[in-house]
Amino acid sequence: MSLGEFDLIARYFARHAARGDVLLGIGDDAAVIATPADRRLVIAMDTIVEGVHFPVGTAAADIGYRALAVNLSDLAAMGAEPAWMTLSLSLPESEAQWVAAFAQGLFELADLHGVALIGGDTVRGPMVITVQVAGYVETDRWLTRSGAKEGDLIFVSGSVGEAAAGLSVIQQSGPGAAASRSLRQRFLRPQPRVELGRHLRMFATAAMDISDGLLTDLDKLCAASNCGAEVDVGALPISAAMREMFDEASCVDYALAGGDDYEIMFTVRPAQVALVPAGCTRIGAITKGKDVRCIRDGLPVTVRRRGYDHFATKDSAP
Amino acid sequence: MSLGEFDLIARYFARHAARGDVLLGIGDDAAVIATPADRRLVIAMDTIVEGVHFPVGTAAADIGYRALAVNLSDLAAMGAEPAWMTLSLSLPESEAQWVAAFAQGLFELADLHGVALIGGDTVRGPMVITVQVAGYVETDRWLTRSGAKEGDLIFVSGSVGEAAAGLSVIQQSGPGAAASRSLRQRFLRPQPRVELGRHLRMFATAAMDISDGLLTDLDKLCAASNCGAEVDVGALPISAAMREMFDEASCVDYALAGGDDYEIMFTVRPAQVALVPAGCTRIGAITKGKDVRCIRDGLPVTVRRRGYDHFATKDSAP
Repeated sequence: MSLGEFDLIARYFARHAARGDVLLGIGDDAAVIATPADRRLVIAMDTIVEGVHFPVGTAAADIGYRALAVNLSDLAAMGAEPAWMTLSLSLPESEAQWVAAFAQGLFELADLHGVALIGGDTVRGPMVITVQVAGYVETDRWLTRSGAKEGDLIFVSGSVGEAAAGLSVIQQSGPGAAASRSLRQRFLRPQPRVELGRHLRMFATAAMDISDGLLTDLDKLCAASNCGAEVDVGALPISAAMREMFDEASCVDYALAGGDDYEIMFTVRPAQVALVPAGCTRIGAITKGKDVRCIRDGLPVTVRRRGYDHFATKDSAP
Repeated sequence: MSLGEFDLIARYFARHAARGDVLLGIGDDAAVIATPADRRLVIAMDTIVEGVHFPVGTAAADIGYRALAVNLSDLAAMGAEPAWMTLSLSLPESEAQWVAAFAQGLFELADLHGVALIGGDTVRGPMVITVQVAGYVETDRWLTRSGAKEGDLIFVSGSVGEAAAGLSVIQQSGPGAAASRSLRQRFLRPQPRVELGRHLRMFATAAMDISDGLLTDLDKLCAASNCGAEVDVGALPISAAMREMFDEASCVDYALAGGDDYEIMFTVRPAQVALVPAGCTRIGAITKGKDVRCIRDGLPVTVRRRGYDHFATKDSAP
């Protein structure tokens, strides 16, 4: 039930879907897809809210990019190949310039991964953006959070903590600050690890993306797998950019609890470590029991925080 | 990226998906579906916003019901059989009672149609609810808006205008008013015409659901089909309850422009009229050209309004 002017802004999203599986795209009551008979369909949905998941004033193109990136990251963690998406865009006003920039950011990432926009809804309301993305996986060997076993080694892709550090930089100095561009980009333009997920599908025992923070998400993986874990704080992949700007304790806080990294955390049997690609770091091991503990130099350490709520003071009813 | 307390409310939605095609449901980074090899997948997404698509103060169970109903109506208009859905729920606060009632309303309708909730997101934010629903259609003969041809007859299911009239009753007297329950229920609990859509798939030339108002939606159908239409105002199926409460002119206004009916409007070749089931009313015919005109007793009439914006004065930024 779109309002008139919102029908207009929907035009920014009406591109021809250049995918053979999209039989009917945007413009009818629903879209029609021919799913490949030899694949499973993988479905993820994430919602981002202004002032909750990104700061008020974030550039429209970055919001569009992010809305898809957080979803593609979920597909990556399942080992799926992205295919198509739907978009729900609730906006207070239909500003053509904002919408055009949002669409540009969204399609920039969509085109990188061959994702077609097949439908959705555009309504007047507070700024709340939902993307549902679908992908395909060839066999029944998709990745889950629940397959880790005692003795498996824990790896994480890329580096961790930069997105949360970048967000703190943005919140302190505004999105336009010249310094620390790489950190800010880590928050504003998360890079979903789709290729890595496709590779891991062949041998990882469990996987999930790090969106809520490494320890919080490892808690979830361990709960799903009915196991515990030990994380070596000294082994965390913390970037040089992080170490330049923050002291060691802050770097560890961001790395363990920061969230928004959209890296993939995964577990591997020791015999298959050679299959782990470059760019991934071993940070610990799966253990008996249910606890997720941290160690440094072989000794237990207490971490200062296990999770952040970046926007806690800013959350409010509309 | 749910906040802690919002992880908790997600539990209200974590039911076992009793469908063979749902291989992995709620609880991982994404869901996994085994789509039937001999069917097409049909995808619709609709968003409803408090104060835009339903009045502030609407009962949570009615909101949950409605969030799915408006989506199922889109599937019905395509001739698809509903299968599964994802839900994005943005809420200012995580009130257990509200969420439980919302889930009850949502699942009441979902269970009627065998729809499984396979995933989604629950976030803190203004009240904005998005459902994406998926269904299956057996062959390549799904319904669209674009197949109507000159000479086809136009039908509509059920009666029209009651939902908009019911909304005006709610807005004037509040949801608790004892009078005119049937009209209010038409707004609060739309009944998606899934069975009818399945039947129409066999012979209708075009179909769409009436969400924005009969004339507005007929404009869209004609634009998609590259044709015009003539609607007989005297033939509109206006219920006895409507006629009791409103004068003739108001009844016609609601019927033509009211919206929210979630009935199906469809076109049929004259030779196939016998296939149209009981409960559908012939309201006009497809014509040459591009205009959608109204007649009464064979003569052209001018309609007072072609569309409503029920909430125009209430729309506001958050």
